[in-house]
Amino acid sequence: MKIHVGPVAVPELEEAVRAAGAELGSAEEASALVWFGAGPERFAEFAHSGIEWVQLPAAGIESWVESGALRGGIRFTSAAGTYAETVAEHTLALMLAGTRQLHTMARAGRWEQPEGIRSLFGATVGILGAGGIGRALIRLLAPFGVRVLAVNRSGKPVDGADRTWAADDAEGVRELLTGSDFVVVAAPATAATAKLVDAGALALMKPDAWLVNVARGSLVDTDALVDALAAGRLGGAALDVTDPEPLPAGHPLFSEPRALVSPHTANPKSLLIPALARRVEENTRRYLAGEPLLGEVDPAAGY
Amino acid sequence: MKIHVGPVAVPELEEAVRAAGAELGSAEEASALVWFGAGPERFAEFAHSGIEWVQLPAAGIESWVESGALRGGIRFTSAAGTYAETVAEHTLALMLAGTRQLHTMARAGRWEQPEGIRSLFGATVGILGAGGIGRALIRLLAPFGVRVLAVNRSGKPVDGADRTWAADDAEGVRELLTGSDFVVVAAPATAATAKLVDAGALALMKPDAWLVNVARGSLVDTDALVDALAAGRLGGAALDVTDPEPLPAGHPLFSEPRALVSPHTANPKSLLIPALARRVEENTRRYLAGEPLLGEVDPAAGY
Repeated sequence: MKIHVGPVAVPELEEAVRAAGAELGSAEEASALVWFGAGPERFAEFAHSGIEWVQLPAAGIESWVESGALRGGIRFTSAAGTYAETVAEHTLALMLAGTRQLHTMARAGRWEQPEGIRSLFGATVGILGAGGIGRALIRLLAPFGVRVLAVNRSGKPVDGADRTWAADDAEGVRELLTGSDFVVVAAPATAATAKLVDAGALALMKPDAWLVNVARGSLVDTDALVDALAAGRLGGAALDVTDPEPLPAGHPLFSEPRALVSPHTANPKSLLIPALARRVEENTRRYLAGEPLLGEVDPAAGY
Repeated sequence: MKIHVGPVAVPELEEAVRAAGAELGSAEEASALVWFGAGPERFAEFAHSGIEWVQLPAAGIESWVESGALRGGIRFTSAAGTYAETVAEHTLALMLAGTRQLHTMARAGRWEQPEGIRSLFGATVGILGAGGIGRALIRLLAPFGVRVLAVNRSGKPVDGADRTWAADDAEGVRELLTGSDFVVVAAPATAATAKLVDAGALALMKPDAWLVNVARGSLVDTDALVDALAAGRLGGAALDVTDPEPLPAGHPLFSEPRALVSPHTANPKSLLIPALARRVEENTRRYLAGEPLLGEVDPAAGY
């Protein structure tokens, strides 16, 4: 049972495979792949009948779902959960920057106190798609005494949330949108979540609420958001992901005073490899021991 | 025992006085003043031999110390501790913005991933002057599992800090400066803390460390900081207070890519009055009951 790291070899990931007790090998002789450095379009080069398991490097794997690469007979694991802490940290950074208007101050270039500075203390935070990132965010928010409203697929109560609704509970989703000072989008990108935050959802939000998207750009209707911000119908938007992505030069979101765009850096390269290496080591150990793998993809659900 | 709120009357503060069971009155008939809306230069207009107690609205009261207004026979209380949570929140916002480079992204106006994004998880945070703000910050940092190094006046261990040194322990201060990924300045402005962070202190800091000042501008040597930033000898500086303050238009700190200046908004007006009202109510209650007051100023220490 040899494991191949590729198409791009990463020493830290190879070391993680060895640390778990497995042997490295070429793609041809491997029974498992630790995929890194390319998208699904190159998967056919590496796939063969001896491959049992593929560890993907990202938490969001919609490009693999769409490519049809998740074929029967091979187990795929995403990195879901691996980056939850670092993405949650970035989410908190965006929330605090927005509520303290640091984006405005960074741009001002002079001593000018903006109006409407607010606080996380006592705020209500709604999380659309409260999975690993949501749980990590709830832990970071705990000292602020916030009220947490959560939506997830099952509606099963999320630890630390005051209310949890199932994603198909329209009344619950509405209650989250109308009641939150921050609406955090952290759901996987699937057919069901495309444009989850559309003009109607934005219209339900409080006029001083912030929208924070750390999931995928496809979950928010960009044009509707641009309109809502321009009309002053939202406190602001902090987006780590956009649609289109990358956001083209001159896009209105770059010049919108109420918007802060981070260019998909919630899980930056500098923090990604060490976190991924820990997951690779753990899943390799589980693979060798025949134990359940972490982050196994459900092709039917699409994540 | 009547209490006067002035020179500027603030309904929320008057309501706090009443809520504590005291009667409002003119300055002439009052035995206590809740001071708001002016500096010590107007105190002589209000002071008379019947005044026993003056509640000041700020946590930092160095202008009152310097003015000589803290005369014997009158008890003064500052608002120290009242704003600790909101200042700590702002401090965390600045730390996260710096480590995630949100200031760079806010200014970029295009999709460009900066280098060197880092994390608070596992970082070491040094707090120079770990009083109420420092303790509140430690509570907010707890979920990040940071290591906290603290310096305070007495050297008495600070809850949640891994090490605490006394301010006059030069070796301890050096250890904090050399070992911290973030150096947070939160000490009162006194003769002893003027230019506490000078060229020598900055030279001891890690080349990728951030300096965060939420105390007073006088505690940092601005010119030395500008030099260190320009030379790339620091990760960055996030300053809520500056020397001079306000920072004049065209000051190098406004154009320095590694710097983020918030214009003394750690305790913004929008959050100040409600917090001060709670303190006024509690101290009025204590005043009526003859109990020790919160934040009583020690004229010898200067805070």
